[in-house]
Amino acid sequence: MSKPELGKHYSPPLNLQTGKVELKHGAGGRAMQQLISELFAHELGNAYLAQGDDGARLPPAAGRLVMATDAHVVSPLFFPGGDIGSLAVHGTINDVAVMGARPLYLAAAFILEEGFALADLARIVASMATAAREAGVPVVTGDTKVVERGKADGVFITTTGIGVLADGIELSGANARAGDAVLVSGPIGDHGMAIMSVRDSLAFDAPIVSDSAALHGLIADLLAAAPDIHVLRDPTRGGVAATLNEIAQQSGVGIVLDEASIPLRPAVAAACELLGLDPLNIANEGRLLVFCPVGSAERALAALRAHPLGRDAARIGEVIADARRFVQMQTRFGGRRMIDWLSADALPRIC
Amino acid sequence: MSKPELGKHYSPPLNLQTGKVELKHGAGGRAMQQLISELFAHELGNAYLAQGDDGARLPPAAGRLVMATDAHVVSPLFFPGGDIGSLAVHGTINDVAVMGARPLYLAAAFILEEGFALADLARIVASMATAAREAGVPVVTGDTKVVERGKADGVFITTTGIGVLADGIELSGANARAGDAVLVSGPIGDHGMAIMSVRDSLAFDAPIVSDSAALHGLIADLLAAAPDIHVLRDPTRGGVAATLNEIAQQSGVGIVLDEASIPLRPAVAAACELLGLDPLNIANEGRLLVFCPVGSAERALAALRAHPLGRDAARIGEVIADARRFVQMQTRFGGRRMIDWLSADALPRIC
Repeated sequence: MSKPELGKHYSPPLNLQTGKVELKHGAGGRAMQQLISELFAHELGNAYLAQGDDGARLPPAAGRLVMATDAHVVSPLFFPGGDIGSLAVHGTINDVAVMGARPLYLAAAFILEEGFALADLARIVASMATAAREAGVPVVTGDTKVVERGKADGVFITTTGIGVLADGIELSGANARAGDAVLVSGPIGDHGMAIMSVRDSLAFDAPIVSDSAALHGLIADLLAAAPDIHVLRDPTRGGVAATLNEIAQQSGVGIVLDEASIPLRPAVAAACELLGLDPLNIANEGRLLVFCPVGSAERALAALRAHPLGRDAARIGEVIADARRFVQMQTRFGGRRMIDWLSADALPRIC
Repeated sequence: MSKPELGKHYSPPLNLQTGKVELKHGAGGRAMQQLISELFAHELGNAYLAQGDDGARLPPAAGRLVMATDAHVVSPLFFPGGDIGSLAVHGTINDVAVMGARPLYLAAAFILEEGFALADLARIVASMATAAREAGVPVVTGDTKVVERGKADGVFITTTGIGVLADGIELSGANARAGDAVLVSGPIGDHGMAIMSVRDSLAFDAPIVSDSAALHGLIADLLAAAPDIHVLRDPTRGGVAATLNEIAQQSGVGIVLDEASIPLRPAVAAACELLGLDPLNIANEGRLLVFCPVGSAERALAALRAHPLGRDAARIGEVIADARRFVQMQTRFGGRRMIDWLSADALPRIC
């Protein structure tokens, strides 16, 4: 027997204080196994991940399935109220939850840049683990690739979620109807402006904290109280303006907002004014837009306000018949203005 | 009504010949919708994707679920026998299929670099669509992000697959048993050496074509013929050596290969020798390793050989009791050598 020293147990543990990501950590060999076992499995550990195969074996799921995927490329990686790890968990849970489904499992694929600090990666994976645990949605399988220095930007995380959809729930951006009330679960623009507050050299006086949160609990309460809801959406990239325009397009309706009723934190309003941005175009990561028959609006609003993530919920507009599918806003000054979705990018890499 | 010209229908179509990816294509607004509708939905189109919501609503699936995810960062993006698009479909289908599951759906998340040619993206998405159609596994939901020039490398694609697992099928890397036969479905090292053949300035005389292929059909035939199979794995990153070492670890066994019986194309053998690489460390993307009771080996081999993707299948080794979990090879010259998995990276960004 030659080279018995090539056994499997001689590698020193990963240095999670000063170590760096190296190309070998994505090479499919021993270094990758070490990264998986000492960092990913250690933090995210659950019975599914522990199977250690190319995928996860999961129990049967009763009901229709929902599947959603999101690549996360937020910059900077750490921001007030979260980081790319918690964001990647919340974002995909929300995409599943706004379909009306109960999120069950997440998959996570990491693209790492050579030279990225293992300490930062460990912090991100720990944050991901905390977010997944708090949400009760485990990361059951994953993948890690490493690219050369300068071919990525620290870390990108793609999460994919699956959930089950109870019978009778039919939510879609195509289901808005003239007369529907439009609700929002809280102040808008927090996430985008939290990112801006730490990006480059911008700094605002008042601290702005991302609203990043998993909305499936709020949504479950809401659907229990008002099962006849037509549309749920989380207004992420492109903000409320883009999301409402999408829904107007899909449903073939118009939407009229009431500016005075839209919740907005003074610090976010001030920062937007300073930067010449419209809060309606700014991304949210823990807010919900709700379209429901007007008769259910008060019940839905009460359900939102009864949940910690919906305390500041408000009724902000209504759906009208409009073949042009315009989104408009009744301003504080009594006029109406068009709310278009931006073609260009107000805030790249916000999520 | 101010600015009626801001209606939704004035954008000229995407220029898929000379256009470039811009940051706005990932901004959640109209430009992103245009990229989705004119390229992604156009090519990948199916009833699920057409729902146009944040995720896909899918029928109930009878049986246990399997979920697998893979980030694809292969460089170059185009190579003999495929490209990152077809590879992203095959790779994830195979991860689901080697669990013994029938792959049902794929999700695809794109991270695009600003300035990437839309013509190349269109070619990749078309190739992805063809691969998904041929495999009968639709891409049901997706996501697109764009990062600044120099913060990625053209395009990265993360695919996630879900499948259903029939009752009674229990495959795992932990199930290899002393006495098992080890089979491989065809010649090894083709994918990795095809990538090398187009990377940098390397060029070999004989063309080497990637083995990239979806293996779920082959696996279904195999399991029908030999339902008592213990382990299936596709030896991707790290090659046969890494995969066998993983299985030896998981199962707590040793493995002995017979060098003379391992199928290897002359062109791949020559290229490996030229570059000082061991074919056992080279990635495959359409090959299958099979561990089965010795009594089923001939039946399994016959089933593999009866399928176009398994014509050159061979029995290459056996599992032995070995508490040290060594993988060894009986060489052509009568000796035995250790087959270790590499710690460092022979070929970064092979998939």
